[in-house]
Amino acid sequence: MENGSKKWGFQSNKILNTSAKYMTVRGALDALMANLNKQDQRPLIPLGNGDPSTFPCFRTTSVAEDAIVDALKSAKYNCYAPKYGILPARRAIADHLNCDLPYKLSPDDVFVTLGCIHAIEITVRALVRPGANILFPRPGFPYYEVVAEQTALEIRHFDLLPEKGWEVDLEAVEALADENTVGMVIINPGNPCGNVYSYGHLKEIAETAKKLGIMVIADEVYGHLSFGSTPYVRMGIFGSIVPILSLGSISKRWIVPGWRIGWIVAVDPNGILKSTGVVDSILNCLNICSGPPTFIQAAIPEILENTEKDFFMKIVNLLREDADICCDRMQDNPYITCPKKPEGSMFLMAKLNISLLEDIKDDMDFCLKLAKEESVIILPVQGCL
Amino acid sequence: MENGSKKWGFQSNKILNTSAKYMTVRGALDALMANLNKQDQRPLIPLGNGDPSTFPCFRTTSVAEDAIVDALKSAKYNCYAPKYGILPARRAIADHLNCDLPYKLSPDDVFVTLGCIHAIEITVRALVRPGANILFPRPGFPYYEVVAEQTALEIRHFDLLPEKGWEVDLEAVEALADENTVGMVIINPGNPCGNVYSYGHLKEIAETAKKLGIMVIADEVYGHLSFGSTPYVRMGIFGSIVPILSLGSISKRWIVPGWRIGWIVAVDPNGILKSTGVVDSILNCLNICSGPPTFIQAAIPEILENTEKDFFMKIVNLLREDADICCDRMQDNPYITCPKKPEGSMFLMAKLNISLLEDIKDDMDFCLKLAKEESVIILPVQGCL
Repeated sequence: MENGSKKWGFQSNKILNTSAKYMTVRGALDALMANLNKQDQRPLIPLGNGDPSTFPCFRTTSVAEDAIVDALKSAKYNCYAPKYGILPARRAIADHLNCDLPYKLSPDDVFVTLGCIHAIEITVRALVRPGANILFPRPGFPYYEVVAEQTALEIRHFDLLPEKGWEVDLEAVEALADENTVGMVIINPGNPCGNVYSYGHLKEIAETAKKLGIMVIADEVYGHLSFGSTPYVRMGIFGSIVPILSLGSISKRWIVPGWRIGWIVAVDPNGILKSTGVVDSILNCLNICSGPPTFIQAAIPEILENTEKDFFMKIVNLLREDADICCDRMQDNPYITCPKKPEGSMFLMAKLNISLLEDIKDDMDFCLKLAKEESVIILPVQGCL
Repeated sequence: MENGSKKWGFQSNKILNTSAKYMTVRGALDALMANLNKQDQRPLIPLGNGDPSTFPCFRTTSVAEDAIVDALKSAKYNCYAPKYGILPARRAIADHLNCDLPYKLSPDDVFVTLGCIHAIEITVRALVRPGANILFPRPGFPYYEVVAEQTALEIRHFDLLPEKGWEVDLEAVEALADENTVGMVIINPGNPCGNVYSYGHLKEIAETAKKLGIMVIADEVYGHLSFGSTPYVRMGIFGSIVPILSLGSISKRWIVPGWRIGWIVAVDPNGILKSTGVVDSILNCLNICSGPPTFIQAAIPEILENTEKDFFMKIVNLLREDADICCDRMQDNPYITCPKKPEGSMFLMAKLNISLLEDIKDDMDFCLKLAKEESVIILPVQGCL
């Protein structure tokens, strides 16, 4: 009751997360957006995240829209869904992956999530063990760090090597892992580097993981969005070497991140994730949260099975053109260089030659000033480390 | 490498949550469903949770369905949404509550969530403080306990008094609270007791909370679903006495739990939740998870503003009839008694006279046998304690 003010039991003497070391992409974007010059009449150019859905050329297919409308109008899916998702959705997702794999997944291997963000959250939480650590790529997608930071998992980083087309530094992985390492994350096609891993490199990753006794968490949210000379290969092809959790979503390939449909799939023909309790742990985590709306889940079979090839082709061609334009424009620009032209995903990783720039402290400073002076939003890599 | 089997770093020597004390409604229902007699040809009678959406008489209004279709087909809402929800949704929810309140909420007081389950999760997590405790009703909705159990919050229970129509035992609240108590939860209309609190009792709750320096978390997910002699009053009416977090959803009143739209609203005309950091804490929690699909959020204004009164009337009348039928049938049944006829929500709380029943150990045992022998699912109160 000091100073006449009431003392409340919920006063935040110590609010959670104030000491958070990692920032979500959303957090970085919020900071940049807050720095825009409101007097600038030019339209904002938003290049900071993997969401081109507001551009008319990236409009999703009517197959997907109609599938949602039909499911909704049937009135059969206004009810709660089971924690792991409804069966037709799980079956369709299993079949969707089966097209790319040498063995047959069942619906029981599939867990429907609220987009890939939720798949990441559940996967990381399901791997928490006393004293455990987990290996994340650097640069990577910082949401992994944000979730892990809230748990008892220790975060260890291995580098991606720009001189090797952003391949995983497997020697670093071997040096970092110990008997308490639960797994390593790879993102393929790469976020934020735009790389696509070859069959050979993915096999090396699988063999290294096997040797170390760790699983591979393959973030394939940009799966099939590849447009360079390296064909896209699913990590799950090597599921008989080492257990894989494949994370995915319709967000990127169908350009509908706001629909919030994703999945975790256990690609594990030897049943190791089941026998070691990882699958139960995923189910425990799913039991205490909400999944995606039931009628959207009900649209998944139609969306995955009947989207026209032409739609996918159009999207991939657009992404290739975008990458070409970016790289062309950068070629004669001494201030930014791109160590590796993107072959997939929606990103290009560039190096800022700070020494040539006046009055720019670091990449965040550059991005803040770019937002303010040019109304262009790009993401600092510091948001990805 | 014992017994020739590979040692994996992710083996669950100690899986999370195996020692969980509390069970979600979903967990209890899963256990009951697993006990059904598959040979029984009769249709299942599912009375275990607040989801009558599969019954044709409870079909939602076409206003709501059309609002979703229009938002989807506009293709303006395929993008990511801000962490607190899109502005038109926040404004519509504020206005929706403003109809029942003596002051005017702004969109900034509203946080859109993935159904009320998510609103509960965010609220509980946002209140975690070192050494803090929180007061929950008994019987209540066990998801509160399940979430709190995963945090550093200490759970304390106050009783609802059947002899007083399930009113809060305010003496118990006073005895339980100390300087580390952050808040107390009330559920009105009541889950699982079907009670509706009077204006007078809600005012007493507000005054008690103020005296104790704690906030009131008012779970109003069954808001306006009242059909007895006690009119439904929002706890927020007393927001000038004590800060209120009102949790709500369209799930119940519109019979669409599978659509996953809910909210947290700070009803706090004195700005205490803002100045004490609670609002920031809610935003921090929302920043690291996904909200509801953007196009469903975009439908909220139309749904909240233009649903016909006749639809609400029809639903409330159906619930009243259901409560009447249940109470009538129980009247001559010596094995179960109902201390208080329901006046709201979708539940009836009954007492099982175990001493009169042969070979029944407790309420869970009764529910398991009822599922097996009669294909009727009801929820044991042990799932609500």
